[in-house]
Amino acid sequence: MKIIDLNSDIGESFGAFKVGNDVEVLKYISSANIACGYHAGDHNVMFETVKLAQKNGVKIGAHPGFPDLAGFGRREMNLSTREIYNLIIYQMGALQAVCKANGASLSHVKPHGALYNMAGQRREIADAIAEAIVALDSKLVLFGLAGSELIKAGRQKGLQVAEEVFTDRTYQPDGTLTSRRENNAFIHNSCEAIQRVARMITEGKVKAVDGTDLDIQADTICVHGDGPKAVEFVSELRKALAQENIFLRKSWSEQ
Amino acid sequence: MKIIDLNSDIGESFGAFKVGNDVEVLKYISSANIACGYHAGDHNVMFETVKLAQKNGVKIGAHPGFPDLAGFGRREMNLSTREIYNLIIYQMGALQAVCKANGASLSHVKPHGALYNMAGQRREIADAIAEAIVALDSKLVLFGLAGSELIKAGRQKGLQVAEEVFTDRTYQPDGTLTSRRENNAFIHNSCEAIQRVARMITEGKVKAVDGTDLDIQADTICVHGDGPKAVEFVSELRKALAQENIFLRKSWSEQ
Amino acid sequence: MKIIDLNSDIGESFGAFKVGNDVEVLKYISSANIACGYHAGDHNVMFETVKLAQKNGVKIGAHPGFPDLAGFGRREMNLSTREIYNLIIYQMGALQAVCKANGASLSHVKPHGALYNMAGQRREIADAIAEAIVALDSKLVLFGLAGSELIKAGRQKGLQVAEEVFTDRTYQPDGTLTSRRENNAFIHNSCEAIQRVARMITEGKVKAVDGTDLDIQADTICVHGDGPKAVEFVSELRKALAQENIFLRKSWSEQ
Amino acid sequence: MKIIDLNSDIGESFGAFKVGNDVEVLKYISSANIACGYHAGDHNVMFETVKLAQKNGVKIGAHPGFPDLAGFGRREMNLSTREIYNLIIYQMGALQAVCKANGASLSHVKPHGALYNMAGQRREIADAIAEAIVALDSKLVLFGLAGSELIKAGRQKGLQVAEEVFTDRTYQPDGTLTSRRENNAFIHNSCEAIQRVARMITEGKVKAVDGTDLDIQADTICVHGDGPKAVEFVSELRKALAQENIFLRKSWSEQ
Repeated sequence: MKIIDLNSDIGESFGAFKVGNDVEVLKYISSANIACGYHAGDHNVMFETVKLAQKNGVKIGAHPGFPDLAGFGRREMNLSTREIYNLIIYQMGALQAVCKANGASLSHVKPHGALYNMAGQRREIADAIAEAIVALDSKLVLFGLAGSELIKAGRQKGLQVAEEVFTDRTYQPDGTLTSRRENNAFIHNSCEAIQRVARMITEGKVKAVDGTDLDIQADTICVHGDGPKAVEFVSELRKALAQENIFLRKSWSEQ
Repeated sequence: MKIIDLNSDIGESFGAFKVGNDVEVLKYISSANIACGYHAGDHNVMFETVKLAQKNGVKIGAHPGFPDLAGFGRREMNLSTREIYNLIIYQMGALQAVCKANGASLSHVKPHGALYNMAGQRREIADAIAEAIVALDSKLVLFGLAGSELIKAGRQKGLQVAEEVFTDRTYQPDGTLTSRRENNAFIHNSCEAIQRVARMITEGKVKAVDGTDLDIQADTICVHGDGPKAVEFVSELRKALAQENIFLRKSWSEQ
Repeated sequence: MKIIDLNSDIGESFGAFKVGNDVEVLKYISSANIACGYHAGDHNVMFETVKLAQKNGVKIGAHPGFPDLAGFGRREMNLSTREIYNLIIYQMGALQAVCKANGASLSHVKPHGALYNMAGQRREIADAIAEAIVALDSKLVLFGLAGSELIKAGRQKGLQVAEEVFTDRTYQPDGTLTSRRENNAFIHNSCEAIQRVARMITEGKVKAVDGTDLDIQADTICVHGDGPKAVEFVSELRKALAQENIFLRKSWSEQ
Repeated sequence: MKIIDLNSDIGESFGAFKVGNDVEVLKYISSANIACGYHAGDHNVMFETVKLAQKNGVKIGAHPGFPDLAGFGRREMNLSTREIYNLIIYQMGALQAVCKANGASLSHVKPHGALYNMAGQRREIADAIAEAIVALDSKLVLFGLAGSELIKAGRQKGLQVAEEVFTDRTYQPDGTLTSRRENNAFIHNSCEAIQRVARMITEGKVKAVDGTDLDIQADTICVHGDGPKAVEFVSELRKALAQENIFLRKSWSEQ
């Protein structure tokens, strides 16, 4: 028997702008990355989403992003590491308070979008994020791209980390994700995607785009809640994992 | 010997938009009401302001407002009490985290602008704010207009409250502030303003616009940091209070 | 043969936040009310939407709203009539420029949400809007609730007006819409909705909630593009109107 | 006798956030670059500023920037050239409408902050801006850094351009401004600054940081309205220019 975490970005609606299918996807995942009002989400959405996660017994994480609602946090911003530290603290604190008011607690932190990507590659940004978590609550688990600078920074600062893998993305021989601009960036076949994930979990290996086998640590799997077939895929993935005796992680302290 | 609290709204800059004279006013006050990014302030300004307050030994409070940067939180918004509760939690949490990252802690909460005024008059809004404070940290002191619904709501929920008086505003016979639209709303003479404040503290009385004497509880005095003569006035006020053996409150637990 | 205008609010997406089904609804309507970046829409969405309207031969209108993205322009704001005038000019100008850059031109103006409702009831707000249109382009047609203050203000300022009726809302005996908070505010049966509209066009009458017949002028009919059955309803409405020999208005100058 | 243009960025206040000293600086300049609500300014400020410019007989220009109020448009944003074209059209259109409502008209366009800098160096961005101006009103004068890509793009698209020089900045041997991060980026001595400007206008030369003489075309001089001594400097500059028989340009069509 193996244990894996399934995470998804949720709570990304903003006012009357509705995003995703949180009610459905929360039935299948074990970690919810909740937007904190900068790139998506707002104080009302955060309350509703925390309650929904609690109801489904899903671990709650902060999903802080760049202050860029118009760009959904997907545009690179050249902020100082000091400002990145500050904005992570701000967003984590806001969600922590929403959790406290609901009798819930934060479990992890996963940076969003461009901030996630930049932190995976640039150590000074990764350090700023890790330091912010240490400053606020050093028991929180830091999610980052498997093998990335963010994971290294978290470990070096003494944080528990969760190496994240993607079901729908291909990998380069150096372990980085293939750029979304490349034709072979995505895996569209859901069976293939599920088999790859199962192998990452059970063998710690994934085939890169050049056919070579990569070592990969898969602590948590990112799944999506939007798109017409997203929830269906997650449901299938859950079934397939159960058939392989792989179950969902209830807490980060369990072995 | 008497003890009084002097509070001022600070940290109201936003990005390159600079407001007030925080460095100077913090030398004279005992409570800083720090904007939390909704009507003013941002994550960077909040960090700088918390550090500045710490350096000056000034108690730190959250100054949450309506999500209305363009209106500086001074425009009434018809939000549900549920949303008001949510946005108070969000803003308090954000500032709490900034405090924690700096080794500081929150001491009080004072709603800003239109939210302050509405909470002073409408009990359901006052209740929402008081409940948010109870949910997050029931040891925080709630600042509200002396005698207002906000003070009553705080007391009823078991919070310590601080009744706030204004140096530059006149009072109606019923204890409310004279509307800013009236000609006699403001006291422009600084000597008169100081004498009125001293009497509020020592005798618990203030003369209303019709000449009658009102009972008033003055736990904390609101002073301003912007305007050309603001800091000079606060400095004079401090001197005058000292001459009357009235000193600044270091903490809300002292008698 | 009769001529009628069918209008719909479109271009309400914002960045990555997608709203409505503009591509489909534009196939059936004759006037597009395009959001101008304040309550919804952005510069990119406005360009795409203008092009889409052009492609479908649909008349283009400005749909200015309150500066309130979080509230989608549906929350009342107590702005001065001067500020309302200013923000109407700003938004109309922005969309006019987008039209000009695409070789298109503005045909009408319909205020959005809370601004539409307030302008229907408060003459000073209606006047501010009408004056803004006169100042910018007095040939634009002003859309307002049939019989409302906005229509009266437009006429009094010399503007061509289009009295708007709703397919899915009921009317009070005084000609106002039944409040959305009432149980009988909406007409859910699409056949009934279509029959009511046809009668408004052909007879100039509609039955109020108390059963009495109201006189109503129907120059333009508001239809919706979001919601699962919205487009289907518009398609049915078009067919039903054609069967009654009611055709769509190509331009506001035709008789 | 020579003619020169003096321009300044004004109308940069936002709601209650006050920036600069527009009333004073407008007495001394001939071109006002008015913020359009993206990086600074709002619909109310734009109206007030247009009126103030009219009253002072100052030519009005659009000063469009990145949609980044928190960064005051000074942060680079990696937007597509298509989006840059769109946002220039939007902002120009909004200000054009404000002008029209006041019986004024636009005279020029100067991109703001990071957009100005990027357009000076990257031709595809310069082209997008020039194309937007051509699309909206090809009689508008395009302001850009003297000798930059923006000037070249404007000329190539057939626009009248104004090469801009700076009073308080030093130049590299290749004609670019010395980066603000360098110690020798600024000229602090006002006499020296004035002499340099006078020489640029009369001789078409400026000394670079390495002592070599550069050819420079000075059509318009950028002066600042904020800072404690800004207005005093502009007043001195005007006097010094008059002594050299250099007068302010009333219109871009005069020779």
